[in-house]
Amino acid sequence: MSKLTVTFGEIMLRLGPPGFERFLQSPQLVATFGGAEANVAVTLASFGLPAAFVTVLPDKNPLAEAAIGELRRFGVDTSRIVRGKGRLGVYFVEAGANQFEAVQAARAAELTVSCDLNYRKNLWKWGKSAAEVMRELVKSVDIVIANEEDIQMALDIQTDVSVHAGNLDRAAYRSLTGTVLAKFPNLKAIAVTLRESKSASHNTWSACLNDRSEFLVSRTYDITHIVDRVGSGDSFAAGLIWGLQSLPNRRDALEFAVAASCLKHSIPGDFCRLTRDEVNTLLEGDGSGRVQR
Amino acid sequence: MSKLTVTFGEIMLRLGPPGFERFLQSPQLVATFGGAEANVAVTLASFGLPAAFVTVLPDKNPLAEAAIGELRRFGVDTSRIVRGKGRLGVYFVEAGANQFEAVQAARAAELTVSCDLNYRKNLWKWGKSAAEVMRELVKSVDIVIANEEDIQMALDIQTDVSVHAGNLDRAAYRSLTGTVLAKFPNLKAIAVTLRESKSASHNTWSACLNDRSEFLVSRTYDITHIVDRVGSGDSFAAGLIWGLQSLPNRRDALEFAVAASCLKHSIPGDFCRLTRDEVNTLLEGDGSGRVQR
Amino acid sequence: MSKLTVTFGEIMLRLGPPGFERFLQSPQLVATFGGAEANVAVTLASFGLPAAFVTVLPDKNPLAEAAIGELRRFGVDTSRIVRGKGRLGVYFVEAGANQFEAVQAARAAELTVSCDLNYRKNLWKWGKSAAEVMRELVKSVDIVIANEEDIQMALDIQTDVSVHAGNLDRAAYRSLTGTVLAKFPNLKAIAVTLRESKSASHNTWSACLNDRSEFLVSRTYDITHIVDRVGSGDSFAAGLIWGLQSLPNRRDALEFAVAASCLKHSIPGDFCRLTRDEVNTLLEGDGSGRVQR
Amino acid sequence: MSKLTVTFGEIMLRLGPPGFERFLQSPQLVATFGGAEANVAVTLASFGLPAAFVTVLPDKNPLAEAAIGELRRFGVDTSRIVRGKGRLGVYFVEAGANQFEAVQAARAAELTVSCDLNYRKNLWKWGKSAAEVMRELVKSVDIVIANEEDIQMALDIQTDVSVHAGNLDRAAYRSLTGTVLAKFPNLKAIAVTLRESKSASHNTWSACLNDRSEFLVSRTYDITHIVDRVGSGDSFAAGLIWGLQSLPNRRDALEFAVAASCLKHSIPGDFCRLTRDEVNTLLEGDGSGRVQR
Amino acid sequence: MSKLTVTFGEIMLRLGPPGFERFLQSPQLVATFGGAEANVAVTLASFGLPAAFVTVLPDKNPLAEAAIGELRRFGVDTSRIVRGKGRLGVYFVEAGANQFEAVQAARAAELTVSCDLNYRKNLWKWGKSAAEVMRELVKSVDIVIANEEDIQMALDIQTDVSVHAGNLDRAAYRSLTGTVLAKFPNLKAIAVTLRESKSASHNTWSACLNDRSEFLVSRTYDITHIVDRVGSGDSFAAGLIWGLQSLPNRRDALEFAVAASCLKHSIPGDFCRLTRDEVNTLLEGDGSGRVQR
Amino acid sequence: MSKLTVTFGEIMLRLGPPGFERFLQSPQLVATFGGAEANVAVTLASFGLPAAFVTVLPDKNPLAEAAIGELRRFGVDTSRIVRGKGRLGVYFVEAGANQFEAVQAARAAELTVSCDLNYRKNLWKWGKSAAEVMRELVKSVDIVIANEEDIQMALDIQTDVSVHAGNLDRAAYRSLTGTVLAKFPNLKAIAVTLRESKSASHNTWSACLNDRSEFLVSRTYDITHIVDRVGSGDSFAAGLIWGLQSLPNRRDALEFAVAASCLKHSIPGDFCRLTRDEVNTLLEGDGSGRVQR
Repeated sequence: MSKLTVTFGEIMLRLGPPGFERFLQSPQLVATFGGAEANVAVTLASFGLPAAFVTVLPDKNPLAEAAIGELRRFGVDTSRIVRGKGRLGVYFVEAGANQFEAVQAARAAELTVSCDLNYRKNLWKWGKSAAEVMRELVKSVDIVIANEEDIQMALDIQTDVSVHAGNLDRAAYRSLTGTVLAKFPNLKAIAVTLRESKSASHNTWSACLNDRSEFLVSRTYDITHIVDRVGSGDSFAAGLIWGLQSLPNRRDALEFAVAASCLKHSIPGDFCRLTRDEVNTLLEGDGSGRVQR
Repeated sequence: MSKLTVTFGEIMLRLGPPGFERFLQSPQLVATFGGAEANVAVTLASFGLPAAFVTVLPDKNPLAEAAIGELRRFGVDTSRIVRGKGRLGVYFVEAGANQFEAVQAARAAELTVSCDLNYRKNLWKWGKSAAEVMRELVKSVDIVIANEEDIQMALDIQTDVSVHAGNLDRAAYRSLTGTVLAKFPNLKAIAVTLRESKSASHNTWSACLNDRSEFLVSRTYDITHIVDRVGSGDSFAAGLIWGLQSLPNRRDALEFAVAASCLKHSIPGDFCRLTRDEVNTLLEGDGSGRVQR
Repeated sequence: MSKLTVTFGEIMLRLGPPGFERFLQSPQLVATFGGAEANVAVTLASFGLPAAFVTVLPDKNPLAEAAIGELRRFGVDTSRIVRGKGRLGVYFVEAGANQFEAVQAARAAELTVSCDLNYRKNLWKWGKSAAEVMRELVKSVDIVIANEEDIQMALDIQTDVSVHAGNLDRAAYRSLTGTVLAKFPNLKAIAVTLRESKSASHNTWSACLNDRSEFLVSRTYDITHIVDRVGSGDSFAAGLIWGLQSLPNRRDALEFAVAASCLKHSIPGDFCRLTRDEVNTLLEGDGSGRVQR
Repeated sequence: MSKLTVTFGEIMLRLGPPGFERFLQSPQLVATFGGAEANVAVTLASFGLPAAFVTVLPDKNPLAEAAIGELRRFGVDTSRIVRGKGRLGVYFVEAGANQFEAVQAARAAELTVSCDLNYRKNLWKWGKSAAEVMRELVKSVDIVIANEEDIQMALDIQTDVSVHAGNLDRAAYRSLTGTVLAKFPNLKAIAVTLRESKSASHNTWSACLNDRSEFLVSRTYDITHIVDRVGSGDSFAAGLIWGLQSLPNRRDALEFAVAASCLKHSIPGDFCRLTRDEVNTLLEGDGSGRVQR
Repeated sequence: MSKLTVTFGEIMLRLGPPGFERFLQSPQLVATFGGAEANVAVTLASFGLPAAFVTVLPDKNPLAEAAIGELRRFGVDTSRIVRGKGRLGVYFVEAGANQFEAVQAARAAELTVSCDLNYRKNLWKWGKSAAEVMRELVKSVDIVIANEEDIQMALDIQTDVSVHAGNLDRAAYRSLTGTVLAKFPNLKAIAVTLRESKSASHNTWSACLNDRSEFLVSRTYDITHIVDRVGSGDSFAAGLIWGLQSLPNRRDALEFAVAASCLKHSIPGDFCRLTRDEVNTLLEGDGSGRVQR
Repeated sequence: MSKLTVTFGEIMLRLGPPGFERFLQSPQLVATFGGAEANVAVTLASFGLPAAFVTVLPDKNPLAEAAIGELRRFGVDTSRIVRGKGRLGVYFVEAGANQFEAVQAARAAELTVSCDLNYRKNLWKWGKSAAEVMRELVKSVDIVIANEEDIQMALDIQTDVSVHAGNLDRAAYRSLTGTVLAKFPNLKAIAVTLRESKSASHNTWSACLNDRSEFLVSRTYDITHIVDRVGSGDSFAAGLIWGLQSLPNRRDALEFAVAASCLKHSIPGDFCRLTRDEVNTLLEGDGSGRVQR
């Protein structure tokens, strides 16, 4: 049996308007739970790995009860959650559409790789700056999962990645990940997710992994009808954690993680409501296009 | 033309589950705006009185924009609202049903008058205690609108109001309001709303007014299918403010205020979405029961 | 096999806000079809009587198609509907709550019988006044179905019906219906529906029938949680038409019509979505209270 | 720590139309999970008692996954659920309104006590008749929870309970429960829930318990705005199981069970989404009517 | 007047989650009716052809009544439906998104023609295998409507259709349909629908028809925002049946059928809610792109 | 401070089915307000320009009150609206999908520029023909905003604009706008919006402006996931009005207007719920694709 994976972090109530409406265009908000570490725990549990989530939540509070219930629904062990003072965090996300296309149309050939790990950074409050915390953190871990902007902002490593229309600069990423590994000798590997935002609802998605012995680049997915991209980075992390434990080699783990997080884009809410079988169906696609979801 | 009435206070986002559900039973929250002073401003504007609302709201924030837009919809002057730091307040309200009946069934004949002004007291944060703030406040106003519990808690006046099944103790309220007027010589009058909670969806509703020269008790309404009682006290306050300015005498003002706040119970959300005509239709009821709403 | 009953009239789109909201409180309207004669045709068809509905509807219009489709859904024969110029009628209905109680609370013991046939009168446009049209109409029919106000307004017969708290004045109704039968010698019978509006959601409901040889009064139903009363008069009419054709005597027909229209109050929309079996279950109630709707 | 309570049974998908609509009046069904034993397990877990639910559910089926997730959400141990062949059961429930009032209006003074345990009996398929199964079952248990009809139908004991308008016949129930205890010497106690159906949305609710040494009757709750009564019997059972384990005496356990199941009537869906605190708030009601839900 | 077309088959309740949600992510299911033969009958009736649907449905069952009402809404003759024992079939369909793109992105240039007739095959239970039943069936019909997989699986004819990126192999389909016509000398013609699944929401759609004298290939539609593809094969069948009866030649019939089923992809639910005029507007497109749906 | 812009026109209730449904597929209509001049006023006010809207609306009508409230919500001055007889206009709009692709697929390379100003022309009733009214109108204005079809239909100027696949004929538009300026010597400038309808949900969008001294063509936006295009022409007009008043030159004004109306396509309802900041974010796009909405 697999050993328990424990994630520490925050679970928050995420509120957004229905469909493509702007806030309060209708007197209604869609309410789901999210937060990077909670997303990871849910995804791990969905893949069958024992997962516990640790946080502090207010006592005798129906929203906190609902958050715990939602984690339990996916099989996450919530028995270590501490009940105390404070309040449940709330964040607001509005879906956008089309306009990214507009940007892109005006600039063609100048696409940039972007990721969303930084999005939530503003919400965390650790006393120190995020950069200080994270540099310390990286010194004591084995594997870093990041994106190009995280590396630049959090690790203070200047990158010189240029992306030519539709073609990721493979050499640049090999070099960038190599720099990180050199700066942090403790690291065994670094994985970087690679997103090209063609528009709000059309992205490409892939990842690379450098474990000092080899530099792997996953296949690239072209995702044209994004339903909800929040939580995809977390799904990648969970997929990689699971894959490195359970699959025969790092390439398989990398491909599993990219496929899982690719599928996440089709599911509303932060959580990756998928089984391993569904991810494998995508990985093993028979070319007929008749994949179930 | 009537002079402008300015109210200062907080406008907040009110979130609750749909229908009689418990929080997050469905992944959806019903979102409306409320807050005592905002409610008063909206009701005054709906009755045709120039009304401005003053508050501080965060800058470049779509929820704050929505709050301002919602006030403007009712004709409230929002040009004095200050945009600055901070965040929009959020509060959560869940509808209950039935169980109050249960309480009442077990106790019969022991009903108590209750009001909801105290409900929000816990949400305001003024630096000092609510009681300190309010006692100071009362020293500089002309007319106080309160309920029995407010008087006891905020003004530190012990009340000895006993209510016999279905019969308000008229003498006790005359005495109680007299005590307040004696303690605060500045006051010209005090109005007290009187609610008997027979159940969550069945209340009686009336009010009294003591202006030193006379003690008036309004007619009593029996409200058996309450849709939303939040904001009814505020509707009463706004109705009284309007009536004292616009109607020939205090009895008419009191009856108008009670009728307006009675009708508020049939409208979801904090705001009293009613015209003066609709309130008058209730006041002048032709006995046919064919009132429009 | 029963012969075909043909009704002529208007079918309209009925729009109202969801639940107890006021118009456009949410950006949504609940859309159903209705209109007195259409309601009658639907109810007759639901009870198993061949029924055709005749009207004029605009050509190549998706709302008109939807109206026809909705009639067909209940088995109404729509093959005689003429497609031509013009537009589908639209009417707006907002649900009210509670406040009627307020009226009633202030007047107790002074309840009045009211009906809703007059409600739609304002919507019909016949060139002549409704009264002229209806007086002519009554001269050529066998059975009139009306309410006390209709008789007064449309037939110009002064009534002196006094209703004592909770007790319909049986003698007055016998006299009133007798007057109508005397004025219109062609009439074989007249049926009058009797509604006491205790509140918007609490009415009593019964009917009487005078066929010159006897004066029948139905049992009285106490309806305390009205969902939608629009269309109940039409359900009564349809129930009576069906009953007079299919049941052994007039008392049974009257009781069937009252029971059918009583049940209509529990169904949203104008149409009486009920089977004969369901009406009979109410009529034959076994006293257990365990009726299936 | 309390010992684990294991319930065996079926969890099913319950489908019904929204609000008071008839089936398919809107193209939408409200979907929740239910089933007597699942309800008991959920309620026990909500009250803090370790509870496991055992059943057989189809493998690789998203609805079965959702059912398990829903049980886990409430903290029910689902690790003993067997995954195999077959399909998830589905049942359809339509809300009714008003018409029960009609029945009752026509009969006044002849109310009957009814319960709903028998409702689901038709859905279970055990090979033998329900009566055979249950009589065998009762021989091996300590405490029976039943209603008057169950006793008659399932245990084949003729009852002669007469109920006078509004007054349960205390002596008759003492006698009836005594007969059961005499016939099944193994029983330590029997509890009977007592429902008077005044209308679909207005019931009274209480219970009695006979443990051979004494005959206890609980207080009676008058529930006037029922939201959903399905699952109330199960909430009573769970409340009694919890109370007998955790409270100082049988009277407290009985009152806790009745209060819990009374509150269940205000919650949509089968499950009793309540905490012990909320039940205690009702039990300890301060007479103010200001209970939180 | 056209002669009556009678279809025999099953009508079932189709349940799915709202939007792109996974099952039970919200406590709600979208409920529509469907089933291949019912779809055909509805489409024929919508095109103005007299159509009757024959099936067996349970008696006194509100869902069965709703199914019949829904057929009648479209003008389908339901008078031949037999009411008896049994239950209404239920099937569950979940919408997917995006991920198909992923598959396709990884394989480019290797698209495959797929159809969905086989989808429902698993639901039908005929005693014999589907293949046995269908081979017998084909021996007695004039025109077969199928897809490439149906031909292979049901008729046991090996196909060697290779599809090059974006270019259907015209010769291969001529040969394949020729083989079928040779094997079943009774056949006058065979029509094959051709779907290329570029992604879950992006397909191409066309068809070919071989009537021994000529081999026709329709124009190809590129459908990029699929709303619901279930029922499109049935719409094709109905369009062809109508066209062969009503249009001057087989080419027109084929193009009408393809256009009708192309438009079906934009309509939620199984049924093809379209008029002939709307199909013709697409066929006669004026090049302006200003088609009304 | 900017001077007040007053627009005269009609505000109407716009009704449509939810999502991609056909009318009355669900018993629900989505209700928003719209009308060309109201849209302009709302957009101007949203951009911070003082804007008043003048119209005639029925008195004591809750829908008219809602319309006024909705205008006020965006800060439009409604104090000049006249209340009188008549009724609020209602229009119906159904969303389409996919099928435009079909048209386009069959014609490739033959795309045509289309606009929607003409759409509403049929709804206005001015006594004279629209052409007569508009030619008179144009003689007294400074700047005309139109599209190619408007120019042809309303100004009776024959155009010979040919559009080659994806390339607007720049010279033709320079000539066309020159002809208008020659015919109406009073005009200072004319702006023309240019839409290519690739499909119902995929358009390109740009505009040109001729002010006699120079002919400007804006950048072209490729909008691939249109949410709602109604009101985009009005957003362009408002953006241009604002830009000509507030920005340093005509090019900036033109680009602002095109960007604002491009973003409008992502917002449901007629109104352009955008701030100037959001438009500027698109205009100044940093190439990262990380625009907020």
